[in-house]
Amino acid sequence: MSVTFTEFYPEVDGAFTMQVSKMLYSDRSPYQKIDIVESPQFGRVLLLDDMVMLTERDEFIYHEMIAHVPLFVHPNPRQVLVIGGGDGGTVRELLRHEIVQHVDLVDIDEMVTRACLKYIPTVAGKLLSERVECKFQDGVKYVKETQQRYDIIIVDSTDPDTVGEGLFTRQFYQDCYRILNDDGILVNQSESPAWQPQAMKSIIRKLKSVFDQLYFYQAHIPTYPSGHWAFGFATKKYHPVKNFRKERYRQLNLPFKYYNSDIHRAAFALPTFFREMIDDV
Amino acid sequence: MSVTFTEFYPEVDGAFTMQVSKMLYSDRSPYQKIDIVESPQFGRVLLLDDMVMLTERDEFIYHEMIAHVPLFVHPNPRQVLVIGGGDGGTVRELLRHEIVQHVDLVDIDEMVTRACLKYIPTVAGKLLSERVECKFQDGVKYVKETQQRYDIIIVDSTDPDTVGEGLFTRQFYQDCYRILNDDGILVNQSESPAWQPQAMKSIIRKLKSVFDQLYFYQAHIPTYPSGHWAFGFATKKYHPVKNFRKERYRQLNLPFKYYNSDIHRAAFALPTFFREMIDDV
Repeated sequence: MSVTFTEFYPEVDGAFTMQVSKMLYSDRSPYQKIDIVESPQFGRVLLLDDMVMLTERDEFIYHEMIAHVPLFVHPNPRQVLVIGGGDGGTVRELLRHEIVQHVDLVDIDEMVTRACLKYIPTVAGKLLSERVECKFQDGVKYVKETQQRYDIIIVDSTDPDTVGEGLFTRQFYQDCYRILNDDGILVNQSESPAWQPQAMKSIIRKLKSVFDQLYFYQAHIPTYPSGHWAFGFATKKYHPVKNFRKERYRQLNLPFKYYNSDIHRAAFALPTFFREMIDDV
Repeated sequence: MSVTFTEFYPEVDGAFTMQVSKMLYSDRSPYQKIDIVESPQFGRVLLLDDMVMLTERDEFIYHEMIAHVPLFVHPNPRQVLVIGGGDGGTVRELLRHEIVQHVDLVDIDEMVTRACLKYIPTVAGKLLSERVECKFQDGVKYVKETQQRYDIIIVDSTDPDTVGEGLFTRQFYQDCYRILNDDGILVNQSESPAWQPQAMKSIIRKLKSVFDQLYFYQAHIPTYPSGHWAFGFATKKYHPVKNFRKERYRQLNLPFKYYNSDIHRAAFALPTFFREMIDDV
């Protein structure tokens, strides 16, 4: 018998299928369907509404790239806000920087975090750190109401057509802008320029209308649709490449599996079709 | 009714499925099974032994990257040899450079070329150019016996476990070395560092044992396994980034869809895991 999980890629009428050897967890929260399965090739896999959020095999790519790029640009990233990211992978990477004093994680769905703490502790474990406060509430409401200020905001959301919808609105980006310090940086996961050009353009349009300086960078993430994944880098002051903190990077000398100083620069070099998408908006 | 094509990805016990609206061509040559189908989302798709070789939607990525990278490094690329590449996409890109005087295309399977000329002429059409000579014969044998010399050799092969097997041997690379001019460059498609690390390491080991200078570069190709695709750049003299021909690039001012001068440089910045793979061999 062969048990498989298939994620449908509606944007290309396609699908990706992987073998499943164990079904570890399956439940429904008020917000979404949550499954954790084990795959012989991909390790443990977190699925939300039947979409791959992370696999143990390649989650390091997404999490290193969403965390270390802004961290190695901001000169003094002490206060960091993560919206979404309840699996804990982004927080794990942030905490590798001692300069980060405090991380607020705001995720609407506590059940995701509880499931990941139990079944994928290599990813979620650092959520229990003293430097982290988990706030299980609506990120949209949080950024509207909080009096806190942040150096970096990382929007580690699900897709625009899910519970994460509110995290792709102009209003949300405006509220993020307000609670960022004057030299703050917002990074968000921005879908696939190859297969989700409409979602991509919508993100570009809204971010551009709020932030003066907007850049995008990308990574190879095999288990996300198309494998070509983008991140927005919206910044009040620092340039993502010119202000790369070479010294801190060298001193820390962290063992990365995907990220490195060459990748930091190269990730901002975009294919022509993606560049034109940004220029055209 | 829904008709689909599924490519199995044995390296990860996975599969990718796409919709098919028409089956345009299906036959068996002495070497492989050849199909051309039409997909609503991917356009016409060439399948060899049930593996996607190209789709009209994203073939530009592979073909631009395999052709223009070496072309914009070599100062005087007049004579070019393509091994494999019977679909014509690589030749189409090469001919955009007027400096290229002659291209020899050596592909073992004439039936692929005939089918592509008929059903995917936007990719194959330039094979009829006066500057191109198609030699339908075994590339392994050709490079062993020819008295011709080349500035650039592009190995645009199928995978190592197919009819293209001989194009991944040390002997083949040695013969290529012999027929390259003293400042020649060999570029080959090198599989996925993410999902085919064993194939990748084997390519690295063999190329390293023949060429003094070996580099790799990569591109986002959604319809190849993992979407993370590598190319080998084995060179007798020129450095792939330091010797980038900025002047010729600017003068030609070709409209590319993926490639550009930033991508040229950035493509050689490798993720840490891939870099270590190369250093460890």
